[in-house]
Amino acid sequence: MATNITWHPSLSRAERNQNRGQRGLTIWLTGLSASGKSTVATALEQHLLHLGLSAYRLDGDNVRFGLNKDLGFSEKDRNENIRRISEVAKLFADASTIAITSFISPYRADRDFARKIHGETQGGDEPLPFVEVYVDVPLEVAEQRDPKGLYKKARAGEIKDFTGISAPYEEPLNPEITIKTHEKSVEECVAQIVSWLVEKGYVKSA
Amino acid sequence: MATNITWHPSLSRAERNQNRGQRGLTIWLTGLSASGKSTVATALEQHLLHLGLSAYRLDGDNVRFGLNKDLGFSEKDRNENIRRISEVAKLFADASTIAITSFISPYRADRDFARKIHGETQGGDEPLPFVEVYVDVPLEVAEQRDPKGLYKKARAGEIKDFTGISAPYEEPLNPEITIKTHEKSVEECVAQIVSWLVEKGYVKSA
Repeated sequence: MATNITWHPSLSRAERNQNRGQRGLTIWLTGLSASGKSTVATALEQHLLHLGLSAYRLDGDNVRFGLNKDLGFSEKDRNENIRRISEVAKLFADASTIAITSFISPYRADRDFARKIHGETQGGDEPLPFVEVYVDVPLEVAEQRDPKGLYKKARAGEIKDFTGISAPYEEPLNPEITIKTHEKSVEECVAQIVSWLVEKGYVKSA
Repeated sequence: MATNITWHPSLSRAERNQNRGQRGLTIWLTGLSASGKSTVATALEQHLLHLGLSAYRLDGDNVRFGLNKDLGFSEKDRNENIRRISEVAKLFADASTIAITSFISPYRADRDFARKIHGETQGGDEPLPFVEVYVDVPLEVAEQRDPKGLYKKARAGEIKDFTGISAPYEEPLNPEITIKTHEKSVEECVAQIVSWLVEKGYVKSA
């Protein structure tokens, strides 16, 4: 398909990281609607920025209204939605930024694809770290929160294929981190993620 | 289409810029194959990184093999290629990064679309600066360089719809910057772009 393109010599990822003073990686939040992904993602982005790090949140707000506005909610379009998000997160991670993705991403295969491409490297670069964060709240909790009234609509049949109600959510089998927003505060959840990043050496100080 | 998504309060672009200590924007290079886009883009990225700025180059290397690997070279796919690149550049600019795109992008309508979406804002953010850089070399010069032998193949009919030979290149009418890689060195071209950025206040020092 892409036969008339070639690979240009450029800054290596290691050089870029050195210049930026940080390592890029992707923090992939997954969980039910109303599990608290966006709230945690926003607080985490803010926390990392205040540490002087480059971080950026990808979510429905900035992706569905732009890059993926041609996509609907069919199975094919949902897969393509997650595929593009995976690739864009990888670009941000490659640019020495901490990409934070905040999407339900209910299917293991989709999340495994995102993980896989972060591990694929070119030109001697190291693989990009991929941190799967399971935002684990019971369906009852999410349904009780229901800030947008989506569960109610889903129960009434007004929204089809709604994750947890009429479409499956496949729990992560080996997430790097599991957070429970019904047991801990947003600040505690963010601290849990940041501590993990510091422990792994991905971030210098908390 | 996207009816069950909402806008989450988050960091404003201004806050993000302040935290990152720089303003995001997109530098859109356009020009014939072998005009010198990738060489200038790479040198510019390196220069900005050495100034301590966050910059990232989007080009065929990291886009065609990833995000856009489902796209071929039909007119529809070329449009979609540029549309997605425009949106991703905008995300990088929104993330307080200097996005540098390096694509032939031969059609005015495509480049105008990229410019347009950078001007569209949400939640009170300022428009993102869009800097069109015309890498202007005569076709004869590009064809003589022909580092990948593509012009030769295009002349022989082995590559169809090749910009400048069998497909049009629509020159920018009002580019912010025009550089001529056949008259100036790569370093001079980079200096020309950086001076412009400093003059406009987008970058603090050269």
